[in-house]
Amino acid sequence: MIAVGERINGMFKDVKKAIRNKDKAILQDLAIRQTKEGAKYLDINTGVAVTPEEQPEVMKWMVHSVQEVCDTPLALDSQKIPVLEAGLSAVRRPAMINSCKCDEAYLDQFIPLAVQHGASLVVLTMTDKGPLQDVDSRIEAIGQICGKALEHGLELDRIFIDPVIFPVNVDQKQPGYLMQVFQQIKVISDPPPHTIVGLSNVSQGTQERPLINRTMLVMSIAAGLDAAIMDVLDTDLMDAALCAEMLLNKQIYSESFLRAGRM
Amino acid sequence: MIAVGERINGMFKDVKKAIRNKDKAILQDLAIRQTKEGAKYLDINTGVAVTPEEQPEVMKWMVHSVQEVCDTPLALDSQKIPVLEAGLSAVRRPAMINSCKCDEAYLDQFIPLAVQHGASLVVLTMTDKGPLQDVDSRIEAIGQICGKALEHGLELDRIFIDPVIFPVNVDQKQPGYLMQVFQQIKVISDPPPHTIVGLSNVSQGTQERPLINRTMLVMSIAAGLDAAIMDVLDTDLMDAALCAEMLLNKQIYSESFLRAGRM
Repeated sequence: MIAVGERINGMFKDVKKAIRNKDKAILQDLAIRQTKEGAKYLDINTGVAVTPEEQPEVMKWMVHSVQEVCDTPLALDSQKIPVLEAGLSAVRRPAMINSCKCDEAYLDQFIPLAVQHGASLVVLTMTDKGPLQDVDSRIEAIGQICGKALEHGLELDRIFIDPVIFPVNVDQKQPGYLMQVFQQIKVISDPPPHTIVGLSNVSQGTQERPLINRTMLVMSIAAGLDAAIMDVLDTDLMDAALCAEMLLNKQIYSESFLRAGRM
Repeated sequence: MIAVGERINGMFKDVKKAIRNKDKAILQDLAIRQTKEGAKYLDINTGVAVTPEEQPEVMKWMVHSVQEVCDTPLALDSQKIPVLEAGLSAVRRPAMINSCKCDEAYLDQFIPLAVQHGASLVVLTMTDKGPLQDVDSRIEAIGQICGKALEHGLELDRIFIDPVIFPVNVDQKQPGYLMQVFQQIKVISDPPPHTIVGLSNVSQGTQERPLINRTMLVMSIAAGLDAAIMDVLDTDLMDAALCAEMLLNKQIYSESFLRAGRM
């Protein structure tokens, strides 16, 4: 599973403060620690620490700051083209664009951007009207997204479908629906697009957040999930993910599989 | 999920000693604690603390001792008919017989015993030649077991199929095979037989036993597992199982779902 480290995001207080103070050491420390804990991508999100006009410059500064200390590929986290373009102009390795809604108008903008920059693209099963709610409408949307990707010449293994996780205390049927999406997507095309989730959403507003996050992740991996934007600094969460992959024979068992899996 | 508490087993030192000393308080304490932690059945196994000849009497004593303090149904854990009969003669509530190999000769003895005593029956996908190793041979055996059950008039929802878990460091393909068995069994008949595992086997001889046990359990529940013989006193393990069921919408979410799920 591809773990995308979620922590370099201006929604977190320490990062917000670092952005305001231009204190790149905070970002660099998070980049190094997340990489050491097994992050395969680092999410980069300016958050709302700065005005929309400042966001492209801040994104570029964040990318440069992180790349000074590590080579981990970046997931540029914005739904605004100018912010993404600023980040894409600065990345040294193929990035992930995170994310785009699935309305045709957005796909026609974001997919060519991904093609142009050799990037992967996260597409949400969400339109301007809101997130899709059941299995069938999500699968139907995924079919249309794949069609658009092929039309613009983006290989499907560079598409990451995010079926949009709901907090479990908002709609308890949703985690089960997501399992079905992870399974059904594998037969949509060959190769199929990847799947990704913003994991922490499942436990928003609940007690027992770490337990709910790691249980959801293990179940999702067993159902075929490929990637998650997650707190890779949560040791129990990463251990659970690595153990699930080991049990599914995707990581070789050894007494040190938890260490080996983070490399 | 039906949690079967594994601790009242003469293979554990404290229980072995209790059997030798006829110290029923030890068994009673384990019975009460496991019930409080959510066990729906209590496994009762004489272990090898006593000679084969003494086992029926010891089984009966264990059953009586436990029933003095709690009403939790019992899983009589032996492959010997006289030991099982001794236990079955003493139980106050319908028991689980744990377990029988799947050779025809055994099925023809154990199924009528279950019918006679209104018990459920655990059948291993294992013959006198050893455990079945792949998915297809297990599914084929399960079909034959179901046929035998119907022939002898045992309802299929009183059959618990144990597909025999291997230690993951012995054969890393086995956990994945088991997931397929849990899924495929659901379409064998309507209603299908239940599934059960002796969970702790998956981590035999490994480091990280609790992590491997609870990750295997969560994945198995997501794949459709109905019951597990397990260490219900392992709080993290029970929490993981209850959280998986909650995420699958089999337990209602509330802030106290971990407490509610143990009742």
